[in-house]
Amino acid sequence: MSRSRYDVLGIGNAIVDVLARCEDRFLEDNNLPKGHMRLIDANEADRLYRVMGPAMEISGGSAANSMAGLASFGGKSAFIGKVADDHLGEVFGHDLRAAGVTYRTPAATEQGCLPTARSMILVTPDGERTMNTFLGTSTQLGIAEIDAELIRDARITYLEGYLFDPPEAREAFAEAARIAGEAGRKVSLSLSDGFCVDRHRAAFRTLIASGVDILFANEDELLSLYETEDFDQACREARKECELVAVTRGAAGSVIVTPDERIIVPAEPVSDVVDTTGAGDLYAAGFLYGFAKGHDLTRCGRLAALAASEIISHMGARPEHDLKQLAVDRGILKG
Amino acid sequence: MSRSRYDVLGIGNAIVDVLARCEDRFLEDNNLPKGHMRLIDANEADRLYRVMGPAMEISGGSAANSMAGLASFGGKSAFIGKVADDHLGEVFGHDLRAAGVTYRTPAATEQGCLPTARSMILVTPDGERTMNTFLGTSTQLGIAEIDAELIRDARITYLEGYLFDPPEAREAFAEAARIAGEAGRKVSLSLSDGFCVDRHRAAFRTLIASGVDILFANEDELLSLYETEDFDQACREARKECELVAVTRGAAGSVIVTPDERIIVPAEPVSDVVDTTGAGDLYAAGFLYGFAKGHDLTRCGRLAALAASEIISHMGARPEHDLKQLAVDRGILKG
Repeated sequence: MSRSRYDVLGIGNAIVDVLARCEDRFLEDNNLPKGHMRLIDANEADRLYRVMGPAMEISGGSAANSMAGLASFGGKSAFIGKVADDHLGEVFGHDLRAAGVTYRTPAATEQGCLPTARSMILVTPDGERTMNTFLGTSTQLGIAEIDAELIRDARITYLEGYLFDPPEAREAFAEAARIAGEAGRKVSLSLSDGFCVDRHRAAFRTLIASGVDILFANEDELLSLYETEDFDQACREARKECELVAVTRGAAGSVIVTPDERIIVPAEPVSDVVDTTGAGDLYAAGFLYGFAKGHDLTRCGRLAALAASEIISHMGARPEHDLKQLAVDRGILKG
Repeated sequence: MSRSRYDVLGIGNAIVDVLARCEDRFLEDNNLPKGHMRLIDANEADRLYRVMGPAMEISGGSAANSMAGLASFGGKSAFIGKVADDHLGEVFGHDLRAAGVTYRTPAATEQGCLPTARSMILVTPDGERTMNTFLGTSTQLGIAEIDAELIRDARITYLEGYLFDPPEAREAFAEAARIAGEAGRKVSLSLSDGFCVDRHRAAFRTLIASGVDILFANEDELLSLYETEDFDQACREARKECELVAVTRGAAGSVIVTPDERIIVPAEPVSDVVDTTGAGDLYAAGFLYGFAKGHDLTRCGRLAALAASEIISHMGARPEHDLKQLAVDRGILKG
């Protein structure tokens, strides 16, 4: 295996988040499933924007958030995902590159292409986020965009489960995993969302069985994947197929499962949970940074928990503080 | 004087803020005058955006921020300011209306009109903000946009000093003050920025002498206006011309000066100053809300200090918390 130029390459939807606070009542009135990601069309995106409160726009996208987090730790990361040649596309590209992430997927420019994806994220007073995503041009990510050179150059290729929703992207997904596998690189997958797992369970199972090395999931997603209510059983199933499974359990921390061991990692305490958007994405960022740098799994878990705690202490899913410095201050990494 | 439908009407630049954190070194390297507002052209806007860090977009504009703050206190506010028919224009309009502010200035649609204004705001680790504003279509605000009905319907017309920069807007400004005066309404002005006062000192002095009732300024701006280094002298000059002068002094609080008295208002303590963007705007919001509702000046000052403390505790210049509720919780207003 040749030396890698990147620690992690992320592939995912290229989304700008439009975040607004709301009361729980607003979710009920608009039939929005709290805590989940719902796919919406252009009409519903317009309708929801009209009725929602004042917002802020912050670049997002699950795997893109993870890559920005990795860069904040000082890791080398890259991203593949599709924007349009419009204002939000420019914002997305700027923010990712300015965070230090290599990003060179060309913007869609063909006549009649869809606009850049946006997710209207409603944050309730408890800090929980409910996402309403118009995928736009993200659905046009295809095999043509899968930059084989980047994949071969990255120690780990990280795929977000949300990419199972756009059909073309799913093919791109499988192709990326194949190239990574052939190059002797690791493949990592995040299950992203319980409803997403429900929609694409068989496809997820096939991909995992065919060569996912590192799996990220929260408890609900893992239970849904293996159609069980027994957490231990779900872990046993997962460890048969993956070298590593990291399962997040919100305030209860996380569990790292390998064929040989099970490591419990406490959550990093947060005085005020402002917005949980990106908690899983940043958990993956911290974990993958630690893993790519050869740290032991306990430290990988602590870096993951630290990054997640930073992101939920403010609005948006991109880190506002230097994660490397934070890890040094907490004594998790050396200065 | 007829009954008013609005507590305050704000007139100002219609701007979306693009906020990014940076080190002090970045300001020095780019010759950016720390703590001030600098006007930039489209080329410099492009250049600065390319070199600045990951950003978030939050609607801004000094008077618009004040009107959003007023609405958050439960006051009735309206705004006049010019956007283009583009993405940022849509964002600005959405955020202001969603905050509960009446906003009906038509977007510019003529061929070749400039894009919506944006301000690239760099926030240093001390929380200080340094603004770089491309005024875009805000410079096209003219007398045609001055909605006389709104002015006559508002108890107070509030003008931001930054509007002295676009030449057409300055005329609009004078016209608005004239209409308000004729209708027996109050006129309020914020000096906005020390450099802005330097650029337009004579015009500011003329406007103030011709009928500004309530003047907002920070210490530097007031000293610059009267070309003195003696704070007491500046206050004496101002009280000759205005019924009320509110002077902010950062962490030292503020001073409210009338022909008869001088009230010292302490700053509301803030545990972590994240971003000072909008501190003056929200001070004005709290003060004008209290004033329009007939509270005594000490309470007006406390409401002002409270609103300023909320805004500097997070990124951006639009309130993230319900200011009315906050004021009730602190015992400044009754529930």
